[in-house]
This record gives sequence, structure tokens and C-alpha cells, in this order.
Amino acid sequence: MQIDQKQRSIIYHRGQVGAVRNDTDIELDFRQESHFYYLTGVDEPGFHVVVDLETNKVYLVPPTIPENDIVWNGSPDSPDELLQKYDADEIVSESDLPGLLTDLDPVTIHVLDTTDKQVLYAAGITDKKLSTTYLRDALNEARLKKFPWEIETIRLAVYGSSQAHKAVMQQAKPGLSESHLEGLFRWICSRNGMSRQAYIPIVASGPRSTTLHYTRNNQIIPAGPHTLVLVDAGGERGCYGSDVTRTFPATGVFSAEAKTIYNIVLKMQESVLSRLRPGAMWSELERHVIHVLCSELIRIGVLVGEIDQLVDMGIPHAFFIHGLGHSVGLDVHDRVDSAGYLTNFLQGRPLEANMIVTVEPGLYFNDSMLDIWTQYPGYKSFFDLDVIRRYRVVGGVRIEDTVLITKDGHENLTLAPKTVKEIEDIMAGQQLSNSNFSNIL
Amino acid sequence: MQIDQKQRSIIYHRGQVGAVRNDTDIELDFRQESHFYYLTGVDEPGFHVVVDLETNKVYLVPPTIPENDIVWNGSPDSPDELLQKYDADEIVSESDLPGLLTDLDPVTIHVLDTTDKQVLYAAGITDKKLSTTYLRDALNEARLKKFPWEIETIRLAVYGSSQAHKAVMQQAKPGLSESHLEGLFRWICSRNGMSRQAYIPIVASGPRSTTLHYTRNNQIIPAGPHTLVLVDAGGERGCYGSDVTRTFPATGVFSAEAKTIYNIVLKMQESVLSRLRPGAMWSELERHVIHVLCSELIRIGVLVGEIDQLVDMGIPHAFFIHGLGHSVGLDVHDRVDSAGYLTNFLQGRPLEANMIVTVEPGLYFNDSMLDIWTQYPGYKSFFDLDVIRRYRVVGGVRIEDTVLITKDGHENLTLAPKTVKEIEDIMAGQQLSNSNFSNIL
Repeated sequence: MQIDQKQRSIIYHRGQVGAVRNDTDIELDFRQESHFYYLTGVDEPGFHVVVDLETNKVYLVPPTIPENDIVWNGSPDSPDELLQKYDADEIVSESDLPGLLTDLDPVTIHVLDTTDKQVLYAAGITDKKLSTTYLRDALNEARLKKFPWEIETIRLAVYGSSQAHKAVMQQAKPGLSESHLEGLFRWICSRNGMSRQAYIPIVASGPRSTTLHYTRNNQIIPAGPHTLVLVDAGGERGCYGSDVTRTFPATGVFSAEAKTIYNIVLKMQESVLSRLRPGAMWSELERHVIHVLCSELIRIGVLVGEIDQLVDMGIPHAFFIHGLGHSVGLDVHDRVDSAGYLTNFLQGRPLEANMIVTVEPGLYFNDSMLDIWTQYPGYKSFFDLDVIRRYRVVGGVRIEDTVLITKDGHENLTLAPKTVKEIEDIMAGQQLSNSNFSNIL
Repeated sequence: MQIDQKQRSIIYHRGQVGAVRNDTDIELDFRQESHFYYLTGVDEPGFHVVVDLETNKVYLVPPTIPENDIVWNGSPDSPDELLQKYDADEIVSESDLPGLLTDLDPVTIHVLDTTDKQVLYAAGITDKKLSTTYLRDALNEARLKKFPWEIETIRLAVYGSSQAHKAVMQQAKPGLSESHLEGLFRWICSRNGMSRQAYIPIVASGPRSTTLHYTRNNQIIPAGPHTLVLVDAGGERGCYGSDVTRTFPATGVFSAEAKTIYNIVLKMQESVLSRLRPGAMWSELERHVIHVLCSELIRIGVLVGEIDQLVDMGIPHAFFIHGLGHSVGLDVHDRVDSAGYLTNFLQGRPLEANMIVTVEPGLYFNDSMLDIWTQYPGYKSFFDLDVIRRYRVVGGVRIEDTVLITKDGHENLTLAPKTVKEIEDIMAGQQLSNSNFSNIL
């Protein structure tokens, strides 16, 4: 078949290059840019890719390695090895890339607004040929529904993270440092084939459990019957992330107050999980979970009033101040739009099979948030401050699972202990004996 | 005392700000820029510092935190807490920084060429007042000789890294992955208070031990009597690094060939260590170590000829192709100059007390390097290719310690097993029982 050159359009994208820290020679950890990884599977620095959209031919362009780098960094893969490893159609050297672009002579070159276009300009291509109109949306849409091998990769990532959460529960006790648990989490992930985290772990003990994005992890786990430890962490496998949160008692046993709050969050989560299926609307699920939360807060006396009025006034949001979940993929919040906001894709469209999302309700007695909500006379009467004082010692609880939407419903990929009984059992086992740990070191 | 305003000069520097990965909301690990850490001790994003060189007063400027960040990230430290934590003289808000600059009215503001000067320009200061002539050299010089608290911090870092090297030896065996050992190294560092590495670890088994800067760490440790594992890794504590390399047999027992090569490198290192003291010239030590290497390579038959001629021709460099060592401090290669080269400070001046340096001889049978050296007829006759073939299976050996120069000589801060006997003993202990590991998990 003859290709009509006049109609030809191509994709060009440049992968992440290596970088050093400030004005030093200390290399920073390398992590491929996610769109480039999606297009190529390459998690090494300095590659380019060209996709001919007429023929679907993928041209992979490895970086030029200076001869005397080989002693320092070893031999780069040969073109044959690269073809094998990355399933590209052709390997093109950087010096041949301008020639390839000339030969293809595309009418349009699709790039991202973030693509480094230096090589295109050097090859004499002007902005007139470049289009940023379609590529980002196309990639975001494609990344939303996972291929089978993506599901298997994320399944393994969530499995490893589940093991790490379990190990953290088994080790945790008052007097240990949060950083100890973070280190243990990373080590067990590493044992499960994940040398990177999908995001900076949150290990928040005691009052810090109400700080949604606490990542200092530099305090000692306090004693006290109510102390909870909230661990929000997930390993990354082949650039695919996982996102799991568990909250457990520092002592291994939930106080009555902590158990009450914990079980409310668990009820919120289970109620959402049971409604996950293709066609479900995320905005419906968000409304539903707020209803469950409000009804429970009335039941235990924290809120006072009619449920519909309280929900209409937004009062449950004094205790649950973040989203119910998000898509997970090559980025843990998959995808953020170019303005830096989480894409609200889940709001305007139904769930579909092969999406992977988190379900992460929470309930926080956050001092600054509660002070804001309860300081206005018009709102104050809906809060029972005595009851709140009783539960404030619990801090915050979040339970987060990474879940696959299936044809008929969902599959929860997360296997870490979750009910009060499961958590207390696994923590008691650790206190009786360390022997079950020999297999993880 | 009245300050003559006309003479006043100040230092201004801006610390590292937080960053996200590509066009996502995923925060990158934060690590302070080293010069800023040296000036302030602050390892948090977004700070500025002003030092009045007339009064030695240090003004620390924390970042402005938007009100609604507090729910997400917690309350920032109060000015009093910052004064306490960082021993500054005054805490100045970002909004008061232009006013401070106006009040100080300096003739000269010393900055680094890398300093972000946005705030200065916004305050109406022009490049005419800025000087990059002195600050970098002054900081590099100051950082070279350590204060007692810097020595104690690095001592702890090297101690933790030594523990991690020991643990890696105890666990290593053929069939394990290099990444497993990297993960273990990081975990033991974490157990010793170091959540960051000073550089990307090198875990190079078998033939990869000849690749000086191998950091993929993604292969399985091969079986075979000659297989060595080279681990070049060091944790970071309070931004201060450590740098340690150990090379050990995968099976726990050195083959005859491996032992011969290993002991040559050990002899090189011990010979240099015994000569470390204030006044010693690094270039002398480098000449000395090459002499030791050459003499040993003649002894075992790898090189053939007169030692002086071989050294003059540079032939030992076919087997030892990197520097003998470098200063260690806030950067593992402390300091690299602005052109990206390791500062050759050790070449032109004698060692002084309170310097901290590495001593890291190596001996590598690197195929591409040996092919280059032995392909020229004029050089070929100095190499015995049959003997080289016998030792080529060993790959590469490097032994690296982090060492403090003292008043009378040196103190080796590195405590990991190093002699053949120490290494074989500790590896045999691991094979007999795992029980000594229960205390490190």
C-alpha cells in the first residue's frame, strides 16, 4: 500500500534525561516520565520515540553513549537487544533521527506541551508542524482503562504493598520511630520487587494522623490507649503504582473510642465497595459515603440534627475533607491535568471495566478544621463538643484500597488486614513471637 | 558600636524548594542544597538566609505557608521553635525580607552563581550589588575541614553504613538479586537513622564488578567459585554522607585467584592508610599506591618488565582507572567545582587535621580497558595475557574506607569487615545461623 505522505502524522516524545543534584556530581534517582513509559516501556534516561500513525511503526531512539562512558557505566544495549527488550519496530540512532524525520515528512507532529522539542527544532522543524491538541487527552484516555499486563503489574504492586503494610503492623509499637516503620515498609516492598515508592510514604502516629499529607515521619510513636498509626504508602513496580492506607492501634488493641471511629470508616468503605461496578457514577458514590458518615456521626452523638439538613449544609465535611478516591496507574493520581489539578474524570462519566481506582474514606478529628467549623454560631449547635472531645484523642482514620473495576463489579486487589479483628490478630501474633518474620528478611 | 553602613556586606542564599515529578502532583524526595544546609542546618524546603557579615547576625526566612495547607501538611514551626531548632538570630517573614534588605542597605551581597536571586530583584536590588567572587570558594574551603559536630555526624553515618555492609555480607549468596542487597543496605541504614543514601548504591556482582559506576543493580548474583560482589554504598545522616566499598565472595569463600587480587588491593589501601597524616601530599600517595600496585602485578606475573618503566608508561592504570579518594562531607564528593569536576584540592596542598577523605584503591580486569591497553604492539609485551586470563574471572575489587585525618595521623571511621578472614568469618556465621539477625529487623 502506498502511504499518502501528505496525510502522514507522527508522534514525537522525548523521555526523561538523567540529572544531578544542584551543582554536584551526585546523580538523582532516575524515574521515567509516565507518558514516555506508556508509549515505550523504557525506564532508562535519554531515549526518544517516534510513532508513525499511518503505519503504527514505533521508532525507538536510544541516547548516544560516549566511548569512554562504557568503563564507568557498562556497555549499552545493542539495537537487537533493544528491539527484543522494548518490542519496538526499529532502533534509530540519535544521529539518524533528523534523517528519519525528513524521510517521514509528516504534515503534523503530535507532541505534549511538556515535550522537549530541541531535537525537532535542530532538524529544521518549526512550531507550525507541531500540535499539542490531541496527544495529552489521547494518552490520558488510554491510560485510564488498563490492558491485562497493566492489571497484572498493578496487582503485583498492590500485593507487595499489602505485605509491607502487614509487616508494619507486626512490628509497630509505642516507642518505635515513624521512620523505622517507613524504612521497614520500603524494605518489604523491595523484597517484593519494588525498589521505588509510588509516592512519599505517610507514617503518621498519634495526633499526626489527622494531618492528611504528613510525610516527615520523624516522631516517636506515642504510648497511650487511643494512639493510632496511619500508614499511607504503596510501592511502584515497573513504573506502575499502588496506593494503600491502613490505620491501626499502636498498642495492638483498639480502644473503645478508636474502634468506634475505625468501624465507621470501614462501613463507609464497604458500602462504597459494594456499589462499584461499570456504570456507577463516582459523584453518586461520593454523595452516598457522606450520607453514611453523617448517619454514623449522628448515631454516636458527634453530630446533632436531621441528616438531610446536616448533609445539605456540608457539615460531614468537617470530618472528611478529601476526595473518595482516584484512578491509579503510572502515576498514583492518574492523571493530573496540566494545571496541576486531579482530573475529575470520575465525576462526569460512569466507571468502566478495567479501570483501577482507590476507595479511601476517612474520618479526622483535625483541630484546626473543627475549630473553623464550630466557631460560627449558626453551625455550632450541630456539633456536640463534649462527644467530640471524647473522640478527639483518636485523631484520624483512613482506610484505602486499590480496586479493579471488573465486568460485573470489582476485585479488591488489596490484601492487607483490615477489620478490627484481623488487625488485632496479626498484631497479637507479632507480640507472641517473632518467628514468622524470619521469612521476610 | 556603630556600623558603618557604607562598608556593610551580607550573604544571601536561597534554599532548595519543593518539586513535583514532571507534570504530575507527585512530590519528589526533598534534599536541601548542601551550601544552604551548611549555612543554616535547615533540611526543609523554601527557606532563605541572610547573614550580616558586619555583625555575624543570621536572619532565617521561612517560606510563607498558605492557611489551608495546614490541614494537609500540619502547622509550620513558630518563629520561636525555628530559633530554637536552627540557632538563628532572628526569624524574618518573607514579606519582611525586602524591608530587611533595605534596612541593612549593604554595599555588596555575596551570592553563589547558582543562588535563585528572584527575591533580591523583586526588592529592587540590581546585579551591580551582587558578587559571586568569594562565596563559593569561602564555603568550599570552610567545608573541607570539619567541626567536631560534623565529625560526629559523619562518624555515625559511617558506623551505620558499616553495619549495613556487614548485614549485606551476611545475607549475600548466589541466586539472590543485586536489588535485594540494595534494599537490605537501605533498610539497615534506615535502622541506623539514615533514611537517605549519600549516592545511588552500586551492587555489582560477577562481571559487573568491573563497571565502576554500575547502578542498575538488577541482575541475579551468579554462582561460581570466583564470583565477587562489589558494594559501594553509604548512608546520609543530617545531609552528611559516608562512602564505603566492600568486595566479597558470593559463596562466602574467596577462590585462590580472588584472594590474590583482593589482598593486593588491601595492601594498596593499608599502605596508603599508614601514610595518612597532616602534611601528607595526596599526589605523593597516588604515586605510592601505583607503585605498590605495579610491584604486586609484576609479582603475580600479570605485568612483565621493570617497575620504573611500567609506572612511567602508566601501565598500572590499565587496572586502576579512578582516583585514590576524595573529601567527604555534605556531598559525597565534597566539593565538585562549578564546571562539574571534582575539585583537585587534594593535589595542590597537604592534608590537614579534621579533613575527612576516602581511600579507595581498586584493581579491575575490565575487558574494554584491557582490550585498549593490550592492542598496541608497543604495550602488549608488558602484559602476560595467559596470566591475565587466569585472573579475568575475578572481575574487579575495590576497598574504600572513610577516614578522618587527625593531629597525629588518621582514624579509620569504617568498621565493616575487611580482611579475607574477617569477611569469610562473618559470611560463615550467616550460613550457620540466622539468629544473629533477629536484632536488626
